[in-house]
Amino acid sequence: MSANNISISQILKEAPKNWGRWGAEDELGAVNYLDQIQVLRGIASVQSGRVFTLGCPIARKEGDPVWPGRSQPGHHMTQDHGTYCCGKLQPLGAGLEYADDVIYMAVQGSTQFDALGHVWYDDQVYNGFDANTTIDGMEKCSIMPIAEHGVVGRGILLDVARFKGKKNLDKGEEITLEDLLATAKAQGVTIEKRDILLIRTGWLSVFYNQGSSAFYEGDFNEPGLTYTPELVQWFYDMEIPAFGTDTIANEQTVSCRTGTALPLHGALLRNLGVSFNEINWLEDLAEDCANDNQYTFLYAAAPLKIVQGTGAPVNPVVIK
Amino acid sequence: MSANNISISQILKEAPKNWGRWGAEDELGAVNYLDQIQVLRGIASVQSGRVFTLGCPIARKEGDPVWPGRSQPGHHMTQDHGTYCCGKLQPLGAGLEYADDVIYMAVQGSTQFDALGHVWYDDQVYNGFDANTTIDGMEKCSIMPIAEHGVVGRGILLDVARFKGKKNLDKGEEITLEDLLATAKAQGVTIEKRDILLIRTGWLSVFYNQGSSAFYEGDFNEPGLTYTPELVQWFYDMEIPAFGTDTIANEQTVSCRTGTALPLHGALLRNLGVSFNEINWLEDLAEDCANDNQYTFLYAAAPLKIVQGTGAPVNPVVIK
Amino acid sequence: MSANNISISQILKEAPKNWGRWGAEDELGAVNYLDQIQVLRGIASVQSGRVFTLGCPIARKEGDPVWPGRSQPGHHMTQDHGTYCCGKLQPLGAGLEYADDVIYMAVQGSTQFDALGHVWYDDQVYNGFDANTTIDGMEKCSIMPIAEHGVVGRGILLDVARFKGKKNLDKGEEITLEDLLATAKAQGVTIEKRDILLIRTGWLSVFYNQGSSAFYEGDFNEPGLTYTPELVQWFYDMEIPAFGTDTIANEQTVSCRTGTALPLHGALLRNLGVSFNEINWLEDLAEDCANDNQYTFLYAAAPLKIVQGTGAPVNPVVIK
Amino acid sequence: MSANNISISQILKEAPKNWGRWGAEDELGAVNYLDQIQVLRGIASVQSGRVFTLGCPIARKEGDPVWPGRSQPGHHMTQDHGTYCCGKLQPLGAGLEYADDVIYMAVQGSTQFDALGHVWYDDQVYNGFDANTTIDGMEKCSIMPIAEHGVVGRGILLDVARFKGKKNLDKGEEITLEDLLATAKAQGVTIEKRDILLIRTGWLSVFYNQGSSAFYEGDFNEPGLTYTPELVQWFYDMEIPAFGTDTIANEQTVSCRTGTALPLHGALLRNLGVSFNEINWLEDLAEDCANDNQYTFLYAAAPLKIVQGTGAPVNPVVIK
Repeated sequence: MSANNISISQILKEAPKNWGRWGAEDELGAVNYLDQIQVLRGIASVQSGRVFTLGCPIARKEGDPVWPGRSQPGHHMTQDHGTYCCGKLQPLGAGLEYADDVIYMAVQGSTQFDALGHVWYDDQVYNGFDANTTIDGMEKCSIMPIAEHGVVGRGILLDVARFKGKKNLDKGEEITLEDLLATAKAQGVTIEKRDILLIRTGWLSVFYNQGSSAFYEGDFNEPGLTYTPELVQWFYDMEIPAFGTDTIANEQTVSCRTGTALPLHGALLRNLGVSFNEINWLEDLAEDCANDNQYTFLYAAAPLKIVQGTGAPVNPVVIK
Repeated sequence: MSANNISISQILKEAPKNWGRWGAEDELGAVNYLDQIQVLRGIASVQSGRVFTLGCPIARKEGDPVWPGRSQPGHHMTQDHGTYCCGKLQPLGAGLEYADDVIYMAVQGSTQFDALGHVWYDDQVYNGFDANTTIDGMEKCSIMPIAEHGVVGRGILLDVARFKGKKNLDKGEEITLEDLLATAKAQGVTIEKRDILLIRTGWLSVFYNQGSSAFYEGDFNEPGLTYTPELVQWFYDMEIPAFGTDTIANEQTVSCRTGTALPLHGALLRNLGVSFNEINWLEDLAEDCANDNQYTFLYAAAPLKIVQGTGAPVNPVVIK
Repeated sequence: MSANNISISQILKEAPKNWGRWGAEDELGAVNYLDQIQVLRGIASVQSGRVFTLGCPIARKEGDPVWPGRSQPGHHMTQDHGTYCCGKLQPLGAGLEYADDVIYMAVQGSTQFDALGHVWYDDQVYNGFDANTTIDGMEKCSIMPIAEHGVVGRGILLDVARFKGKKNLDKGEEITLEDLLATAKAQGVTIEKRDILLIRTGWLSVFYNQGSSAFYEGDFNEPGLTYTPELVQWFYDMEIPAFGTDTIANEQTVSCRTGTALPLHGALLRNLGVSFNEINWLEDLAEDCANDNQYTFLYAAAPLKIVQGTGAPVNPVVIK
Repeated sequence: MSANNISISQILKEAPKNWGRWGAEDELGAVNYLDQIQVLRGIASVQSGRVFTLGCPIARKEGDPVWPGRSQPGHHMTQDHGTYCCGKLQPLGAGLEYADDVIYMAVQGSTQFDALGHVWYDDQVYNGFDANTTIDGMEKCSIMPIAEHGVVGRGILLDVARFKGKKNLDKGEEITLEDLLATAKAQGVTIEKRDILLIRTGWLSVFYNQGSSAFYEGDFNEPGLTYTPELVQWFYDMEIPAFGTDTIANEQTVSCRTGTALPLHGALLRNLGVSFNEINWLEDLAEDCANDNQYTFLYAAAPLKIVQGTGAPVNPVVIK
């Protein structure tokens, strides 16, 4: 991961901000745009009633696709049929028995929503709260406001990989604003204000189909959007509340534009309060959309309400 | 918790079963009833676009309402602003910093769905799979089929506490089939086949408002439904796919009818494959329904895809 | 827990310090006193070769005696005979099978050594290192120097409870310097310079024999030593390297002298670098010493080498 | 890891057993040999009072040397100076502040003792207890008897790597009984009955010095002892209570003699009840012994008392 010496602060000096738009105490950000009208717009886009769940499996024996450095999860049974068989536990009563378990995981180790305060610079998180509020738990801009509000609206899939004629984008490949618009056009669909974008790179399928070595080899650099003033201005003007992808970080790991790491977490998450829904399984939805040419749907997702969490796991529901 | 000597096997000897209804290999159970028609029926019940999320907060400092014996969760930051301030971590590049965390929790320690194999008797889980399949992980009837399918359909709130004129039902108070039907009638709503029931007891608010002592004092015995042949027959005939409550176990802890513990986990979960969505926060939804008299809505919930899990946390979305 | 307005800083203004005694970079503190001569002195006190292990059981079903607020441990099997029986795992080869497990615990949740940096005031830990070095891990004065050095020397049991004619000291009961000296005298033993003190209150047996309610009821206030200028001066002059008790904090929770919490963690741990070995099981050792009147022995303890730990579990060995 | 079709049961058909030697209910095994005489023999071997602690660091950022498949540990601060600085916690009183932490780890993920029941075949663990006793926790032959007894006696270092003129033995290299005896002879020391053996391969230093790739590359196959009838007979006749090495499994991963995995866990741990102390850091001790030619010492180790544990972490103390 290479980075030059320009600070993100300088890069984003002129970039738009939504701080104060929803009040000085707001911690919800662009998800504020998802009002009842947007929910109804999402409802209206439902046609056949086919349901897709976008969550990835958690705690697979083969491992989960985590950001380098994050822990793999541990899932452990605390009791099961064996416990009764060997007499260590008596049935609940009348012969009823049950299995139980615990899990230990990185909160962001699977399909998730970031909290708006998850990433920051210049000692300020979204809406100007002091970054010290992140110490020992997210006192401001945790995942809670998003988890309590829910993220419900009209979703639109932009299958960039398919548009570019590939099974999956290459490592580090850029998706430009033009790519998004061209993909929509080719799909015969129009991105509308306040849409929830789902952008497919196909990258996650490399992990599941080719294995963890192929996914992590060399310098870790995911394909995806990255910072340009035009892209950020477009997100701002289009009032995009949230977007999801099938990558871990929703953007190029190292921006081919700025040469720095993850600038959109600065420009979109921190400055505009756009919600990031990462590590989605989009393959089944994308195949279905390619078949029936319907690329819009109800998107209904609510991450877990982890108190003071920097994010939370989620299993988003898409209804076509 | 008192229990007599009758086995659940004997009690449920004549009770209906859905084993084989969806094939010998089925692990999804009554959620199979939630086909596209049901999804559209749920969509059709949306009126204003108001959203409610039913999940409870996870890892509160004051503690979470867990079943006696289950662990309280542990939420720990792995890095935050403090880590950068004291120089232990260098920013990502260009000055970008982030917070991260892990969680350790009982899989069923908060708002959740049970796996169909979570509880069994006579060495068989739902659909007759051997209970040995639960050893060291749920090989059959884990939460995965439910998590992958999603639980989407028309939901209906039956606010039994309000119907009975109470803030919350008393400890161990029974809800009969008659109570359910009378509540619906008083609410001016009809329970229809394949509805997803949400039953409010108000019991969970005792934990949050009065504290953990009030909730756990004496013998632990939650209010709720319990086994009668009529109730189970009704669930069977009405093809109820899933039901949720604001209690930990969705039924009386010790049945005032059978004198045994949790018989509905045998009669409904195991035998009919009905999904149990437990520990929901229903207070806000119930207040809203009391105000506008709309008791039906789209219910869209997808628990996390915990591989071989006995259940999984979920934050259900309700759209009125 | 009541506390008045005096700062610990003021209380300990004139109290002795060992900062700089072993150099500006020292993180080992008074355990530095345990040189080869002390080890040999410990060896020389061995008479019969009888061994006692002072560790408490970890992860008992009934719970462990943790400081209020710390987590109870979770011990989970990851595989066992059941996993093989149901075919989920194949034997290692040639029919060999094995059981394995994980543990989740508060590092200080059982018999332990504190790191010298575990507690501080005025933003400085032992030897003047900035308290910021504790952020996200103990960069200075972690448990590592103690764990690597080992704590080996002549130990001496001061069975204050027995001296005072009680099964256990009362909640919040004080042990004065005079009590220590009188106990030694009654035991016919002389406390010598650089002895490792083991002080028995009997308090921990309340937890194991009477249960957790008896142990935690009311305001939590353990019996034990507390701050007086004389006691601290004596620890300083006697060059006590370490001391252990059968309480969680090794001192009165709220000092009956200063009215503040845990002043000896300031005066002894932070200022003198004396090692604290807490939550020891002393009942068996004490009974044996009462029988044969031998109160001195080899004490050999080495806490786990938890990198950047605020302390670590230990199972101390005593050889009489 | 290759293995042929012979069962360990057949291989060890004629091998000696200690079952019943210390009674039908014994769970302590050969550590029973470490009576007071042995403790005194250990005491008598102390010369200079120099102390070595053999534990490895736990939860290093760079990772710990765990058996393939076991989890890496997670060490997390629950509070530190940062928590006070940002006002999220008030000092204990009078200005006292403290840091605290938790750890999540494989019980056998660092320097440890195996429980005697950790590995078995033919559905029986040490002393003939049914392997079902391992389900959901070690009901028999857990680490507790060893942890309570302590492992104290005369220790002897056999620095096989140095004897063979290597920095470390090669991957999969065998240590024969002849190697042990020749090493002792070259060191000018005699192995005596009931000695606790410490055998150095140098293998662990490959992990710490060359990194995890060098340690794990290719088929995992540690150097070490392996099964021959002569070696096992010698352990039996010499009444060896325990032995430790600087490898994870204390023996060749795949035996070059039997072609099966870990046969000595069958022949020594299960059949003779010999205690296995694995993953020791022996480099510093070995260097010291090479310098002063003293290869015998007091060995005093007590693993943590993890209830029903398959083993427990330990930081053994060696006193020369």
